[in-house]
Amino acid sequence: MKVGDRHYRSLWADPSRGVVNIIDQTRLPHVFETRALDSAEKVAEAIRTMRVRGAPLIGVAAAFGLALAVARDPSDESVSSASAMLRATRPTAVNLAWAIARVRARLAELAPHDRAVAAWSEAQSIAEEDVALNEAIGRHGLALLAREHAARKRPVNILTHCNAGWIATVDWGTVTAPIFMAHDRGIPVHVWVDETRPRNQGLLTAWELEEQGVPYTLVTDNAGGHLMQRGLVDLVLVGADRVTRRGDVCNKIGTYLKALAARENGVPFYAAVPTPTIDWEIEDAFKEIPIEERPADEVRLVHGLDREGGFSEIALAPPRTPIANPAFDVTPASLVSGIITELGIAKANERELLAFWPRTQQSKAYLT
Amino acid sequence: MKVGDRHYRSLWADPSRGVVNIIDQTRLPHVFETRALDSAEKVAEAIRTMRVRGAPLIGVAAAFGLALAVARDPSDESVSSASAMLRATRPTAVNLAWAIARVRARLAELAPHDRAVAAWSEAQSIAEEDVALNEAIGRHGLALLAREHAARKRPVNILTHCNAGWIATVDWGTVTAPIFMAHDRGIPVHVWVDETRPRNQGLLTAWELEEQGVPYTLVTDNAGGHLMQRGLVDLVLVGADRVTRRGDVCNKIGTYLKALAARENGVPFYAAVPTPTIDWEIEDAFKEIPIEERPADEVRLVHGLDREGGFSEIALAPPRTPIANPAFDVTPASLVSGIITELGIAKANERELLAFWPRTQQSKAYLT
Repeated sequence: MKVGDRHYRSLWADPSRGVVNIIDQTRLPHVFETRALDSAEKVAEAIRTMRVRGAPLIGVAAAFGLALAVARDPSDESVSSASAMLRATRPTAVNLAWAIARVRARLAELAPHDRAVAAWSEAQSIAEEDVALNEAIGRHGLALLAREHAARKRPVNILTHCNAGWIATVDWGTVTAPIFMAHDRGIPVHVWVDETRPRNQGLLTAWELEEQGVPYTLVTDNAGGHLMQRGLVDLVLVGADRVTRRGDVCNKIGTYLKALAARENGVPFYAAVPTPTIDWEIEDAFKEIPIEERPADEVRLVHGLDREGGFSEIALAPPRTPIANPAFDVTPASLVSGIITELGIAKANERELLAFWPRTQQSKAYLT
Repeated sequence: MKVGDRHYRSLWADPSRGVVNIIDQTRLPHVFETRALDSAEKVAEAIRTMRVRGAPLIGVAAAFGLALAVARDPSDESVSSASAMLRATRPTAVNLAWAIARVRARLAELAPHDRAVAAWSEAQSIAEEDVALNEAIGRHGLALLAREHAARKRPVNILTHCNAGWIATVDWGTVTAPIFMAHDRGIPVHVWVDETRPRNQGLLTAWELEEQGVPYTLVTDNAGGHLMQRGLVDLVLVGADRVTRRGDVCNKIGTYLKALAARENGVPFYAAVPTPTIDWEIEDAFKEIPIEERPADEVRLVHGLDREGGFSEIALAPPRTPIANPAFDVTPASLVSGIITELGIAKANERELLAFWPRTQQSKAYLT
């Protein structure tokens, strides 16, 4: 996507320097700053502190992190310990484990001295595929938005929670791809952007929409129900960190509340995800998906620009205040109208989702 | 309630100096600061900027504001223009209009030269009654909490949104009165406190609970649904700015989302209000209650303590970001388990609420 006049990806590798470059998302929307990471440890730190975030993007970042570890030491022990370190950074998103497993599977066939190049190339493939996946999601989502617009003959009001934008993927974004494509084709859209406390990733979505010229309005997380009661939302569209094969959607904390309001007010609720976000293994989302509990200071401290225009931090609550900070919740399939994937839109049930499964197992043929 | 070692009310009049004293709630929980207001204009400013807030308290403050105007000029024109100015400060809460109307009704019987003392005394009566109302709400709510505890034999987990604490009333608080009473009687309670963006009034609730020694945990507004799914909430208890005689509850934006999650997860949802918060007139809460749209900067700017311990403001979003800030929503009666009033607990329907109506019309006898 464009930032100012220049086209960026959210992450780009530079094999000649042995680094992977990221946009530091903790500084946005105030400061646009890139970082060159030259070790698996630095990649792990960037994922843990959410400089890189978004389920698809942290998978790609972890793959490059593993490649950086292998470049330094291609032994089985090195692969194993770097994988464990990277996987431990964020427990909820399934893409992270998936990307690491995929690079490891590639390396397992090879002797140590062949691994460095292979790891780098596999990470690069995952990154390229992510772009293609998001573009394909965009095309399917676009058809949905075009239908919604045709039915209404006025701008389609979309509510989104958190950020599943291009900055959460390598490019395009799962939620933003259909929106950008609709906007580019002259289908009028307007996006209600939940700020998404505690980390305010909605500000990233707002920044992306602003840069691409898409109409939007920022609201607090509390506002969505009221907006739906008043008929101001036509469609809820979110990303996900994990979708079960039964169609339960694990996404940023607060998504469930919007899904309840959507059902109550007859508003369709969609999750847009690449199929690597689907966890084909687990049976019970509530029992089996670990919900990351993040640091209390994410709630206590808020970042922004001070009056002098400097990047600053203030404390909302005193240090003594007890705080809980669960980072995700599970929206049961019964509240989900559909899952938009690169392979098409499925109803949120096992039968329709499992129909995608064989195609997700066929190398990358389905993307061409 | 106590702040440190001293007993405070949220508002107290000093007729000898011709002022009404308030605690500046925009500085809490960081700085405890009182202000002496000596004119209706200053009272109106304090209500508008939410230095004084909470449906019951702004009613009392407005009554004193009118008394200050009358002390300066007791003419019909003065009463009329001060009333209009004070009523325009916040459109949603019914107590504000109710308190002003009550003082005006008293003044209408009197010649101008008798009005100053009468206005002051009527405002003082409203303040004293508010304390009695909240204490009575506390007793009815206490019985409810005692039953919940008896049924569970473990601490009762209460979730609350916004602040309906003693600082939102003259003393006790509508939501906090039962909680404080339960805690004082050894009934174990734990309160999940929604931070309540954009103005973070949950921090006021947290501060009150901390000062009184009641166990609590601060959470983002997004967390409540997840907590209910996991069985961590036994009861939702909120205040209200207006309740219709049909039992629809208009309260701080985001309340509706918690009510939906409560119903979905079998958690009882109660609103605690004095009967002056009940609007006996309107038929349709969605059409007839004006929902205040507050300034965008409430969402854009956040206040807290900077690293040097000073009271500071930072910008979350750039000035160009379009923002909507509806301040209230309506929770339909169908999602409400009951309304806790000073006269007892009513189901949220017209039949049970109207049974209170005659008693609310009998001077103040019902409070004795």
